[in-house]
Amino acid sequence: MPDHIYKKIEIVGSSPNGLEEAVQNALARAKKTVRNMRWFEVTETRGCIDEGKISEWQVTLKIGFTLEE
Amino acid sequence: MPDHIYKKIEIVGSSPNGLEEAVQNALARAKKTVRNMRWFEVTETRGCIDEGKISEWQVTLKIGFTLEE
Amino acid sequence: MPDHIYKKIEIVGSSPNGLEEAVQNALARAKKTVRNMRWFEVTETRGCIDEGKISEWQVTLKIGFTLEE
Amino acid sequence: MPDHIYKKIEIVGSSPNGLEEAVQNALARAKKTVRNMRWFEVTETRGCIDEGKISEWQVTLKIGFTLEE
Amino acid sequence: MPDHIYKKIEIVGSSPNGLEEAVQNALARAKKTVRNMRWFEVTETRGCIDEGKISEWQVTLKIGFTLEE
Amino acid sequence: MPDHIYKKIEIVGSSPNGLEEAVQNALARAKKTVRNMRWFEVTETRGCIDEGKISEWQVTLKIGFTLEE
Amino acid sequence: MPDHIYKKIEIVGSSPNGLEEAVQNALARAKKTVRNMRWFEVTETRGCIDEGKISEWQVTLKIGFTLEE
Amino acid sequence: MPDHIYKKIEIVGSSPNGLEEAVQNALARAKKTVRNMRWFEVTETRGCIDEGKISEWQVTLKIGFTLEE
Amino acid sequence: MPDHIYKKIEIVGSSPNGLEEAVQNALARAKKTVRNMRWFEVTETRGCIDEGKISEWQVTLKIGFTLEE
Amino acid sequence: MPDHIYKKIEIVGSSPNGLEEAVQNALARAKKTVRNMRWFEVTETRGCIDEGKISEWQVTLKIGFTLEE
Amino acid sequence: MPDHIYKKIEIVGSSPNGLEEAVQNALARAKKTVRNMRWFEVTETRGCIDEGKISEWQVTLKIGFTLEE
Amino acid sequence: MPDHIYKKIEIVGSSPNGLEEAVQNALARAKKTVRNMRWFEVTETRGCIDEGKISEWQVTLKIGFTLEE
Repeated sequence: MPDHIYKKIEIVGSSPNGLEEAVQNALARAKKTVRNMRWFEVTETRGCIDEGKISEWQVTLKIGFTLEE
Repeated sequence: MPDHIYKKIEIVGSSPNGLEEAVQNALARAKKTVRNMRWFEVTETRGCIDEGKISEWQVTLKIGFTLEE
Repeated sequence: MPDHIYKKIEIVGSSPNGLEEAVQNALARAKKTVRNMRWFEVTETRGCIDEGKISEWQVTLKIGFTLEE
Repeated sequence: MPDHIYKKIEIVGSSPNGLEEAVQNALARAKKTVRNMRWFEVTETRGCIDEGKISEWQVTLKIGFTLEE
Repeated sequence: MPDHIYKKIEIVGSSPNGLEEAVQNALARAKKTVRNMRWFEVTETRGCIDEGKISEWQVTLKIGFTLEE
Repeated sequence: MPDHIYKKIEIVGSSPNGLEEAVQNALARAKKTVRNMRWFEVTETRGCIDEGKISEWQVTLKIGFTLEE
Repeated sequence: MPDHIYKKIEIVGSSPNGLEEAVQNALARAKKTVRNMRWFEVTETRGCIDEGKISEWQVTLKIGFTLEE
Repeated sequence: MPDHIYKKIEIVGSSPNGLEEAVQNALARAKKTVRNMRWFEVTETRGCIDEGKISEWQVTLKIGFTLEE
Repeated sequence: MPDHIYKKIEIVGSSPNGLEEAVQNALARAKKTVRNMRWFEVTETRGCIDEGKISEWQVTLKIGFTLEE
Repeated sequence: MPDHIYKKIEIVGSSPNGLEEAVQNALARAKKTVRNMRWFEVTETRGCIDEGKISEWQVTLKIGFTLEE
Repeated sequence: MPDHIYKKIEIVGSSPNGLEEAVQNALARAKKTVRNMRWFEVTETRGCIDEGKISEWQVTLKIGFTLEE
Repeated sequence: MPDHIYKKIEIVGSSPNGLEEAVQNALARAKKTVRNMRWFEVTETRGCIDEGKISEWQVTLKIGFTLEE
């Protein structure tokens, strides 16, 4: 019975529309090169302001994925 | 004049649709057994990934409620 | 070549509808008296509960803005 | 020889007179339903302001008590 | 499809023999009154010293369990 | 229905007599220029020692007040 | 012109009567062997409970003192 | 004998040359509008990278100053 | 004389038998693709519970390794 | 009735065999010069890696001991 | 309009001469394999001592870089 | 084969010229009474301001040294 080993990487996703979309954008990009993603943890939420309005949400998340044998 | 005393409990709510709904689901469940809930504090935001997409948001919150005399 | 200097202030925004709107409300109010806002950092997310439902989201954020020369 | 097992709960006590009394009030209320309380840890100290003066001290504490066999 | 809701409680387990046994003792006691335990998180490791030797390991852990519908 | 917006400022109060008086002194001074103060949060407690005795308690607190429309 | 160098030590003071007295007791004891104490920082506040009442306040503080040349 | 009351503000200074100069630049700018500055605390050190080299150090500091009576 | 540069990665190891074996499993897996590992730092200890018993210990660690010139 | 005063010191113990033995080694060494040790708190767990295996566990702990009158 | 996605990696740079040079050395090494570096955040500053003097500064930093589409 | 045991002490160094010199001054002073110093960790950076300029940098560091058998 193999014991699972995971790696965690740290990605910053962004979106002009909100923090949930920023997380989704981060995962969509990570998916291109990372397989077997299992979970994420939000570690920071921030954003840019332009003319007094939010121009970009920026969410830092850690993504855990299974390391293959 | 009675001094208010509160208790805080820690609940993890989940939702496939977003973090706000995860919080609402947590409160809806807590409401069944807890009376006089006054406030909540988000302490952790994370989620599960399936096939490269978010299958479940998981939000940990502390809920404060008044202890009756 | 001037070196940029910023000041950070701490604002709590609120909204009955969600945390993103709470952030937007905070910025809309800050905009009335603060110029050159550049970024924000969410430091706390909490809210009030009334009758078992969220009556108000409260989001604390730090806002960074450029100090003019 | 039994090994001791404890549970920790989180209570917010309040008092108009000071933080020590807020802690005492929290314990007095907890005592009604919790037996074998052994120690407390202060985790947060805050309060309400009314007309520029402290109307209520609010102290959050964790209380540890022995779980009976 | 129901969304899972969990509660987290904080327990301190102890053992004269080591920290892993302290965790196991905490779970064994919790199991008597809590159903559907899913995971634990170690938040503090400490212990008592008697005559210069460890007389008791004390491990604080949060235990997450599913709240039934 | 207006959504409340608050600002938080950080003040250090001091007193030779104790930490509660240090908080009161901080609020008394803040009251001169800040209106609508609602709550405070203690973030640091320290003090000066002179001849082996406490010459001054110094308490850092954040004060939240309502921003008027 | 000598540059000041300080050492910080960590002491836990206790008192049945309150946290300020616990700090004072810690300093009174430290004074017996430490010279040139300059400041203290409270890092933890806790206590023992006996029969549902506080039997002892325990305050951990760091004490800074000047190292002589 | 007046008890000292201080206010703390948060400033981000920058410099292409190093972190100490970034702190000095922050103080030089703050000095234009703030009197009686007493101490600073560094809370964050970061910077921008351009073409693989540091183009700007950015140091966040809290500045404490005496509030006049 | 070359100055050493290290990279740190974050790995989660697991084991049904204990936390030390979970760390060893993480290192055994990392060793397959990472050379020159020098040290590790445990950042989180948690686990899964099945039928009231620990089914898997999960230990998050940072691993530092030398980057070759 | 004397109020207990404690001092806390910070020791790093090491062992090739595991973290519990590293703690025991730290206590065994401390015992040579420190009397009346009462409790310990683990604050950091790390270790050295040699040839892809753990060559040494290093555990930092704070040790509390009673200061004699 | 593409939304920017960044990855953050953790590097420890060292230098016998000071912490700024340690950061520069970390970036110079990272530049060999990482493109589009945008910012860094210092998370830890430490060093080695030999014969009572600093033989090496060691600075841990997170480096953020743009992930290409 | 002896297992190494270390002690960590906390020292505040100061210098009018910069933070690196403050660290060096702390070590130079510690060297007078402490042997076998191995590493240091910076835990706090702050300073005094006089007439709007830095009069003294103050750096708190932990120093680890080997305890002899």
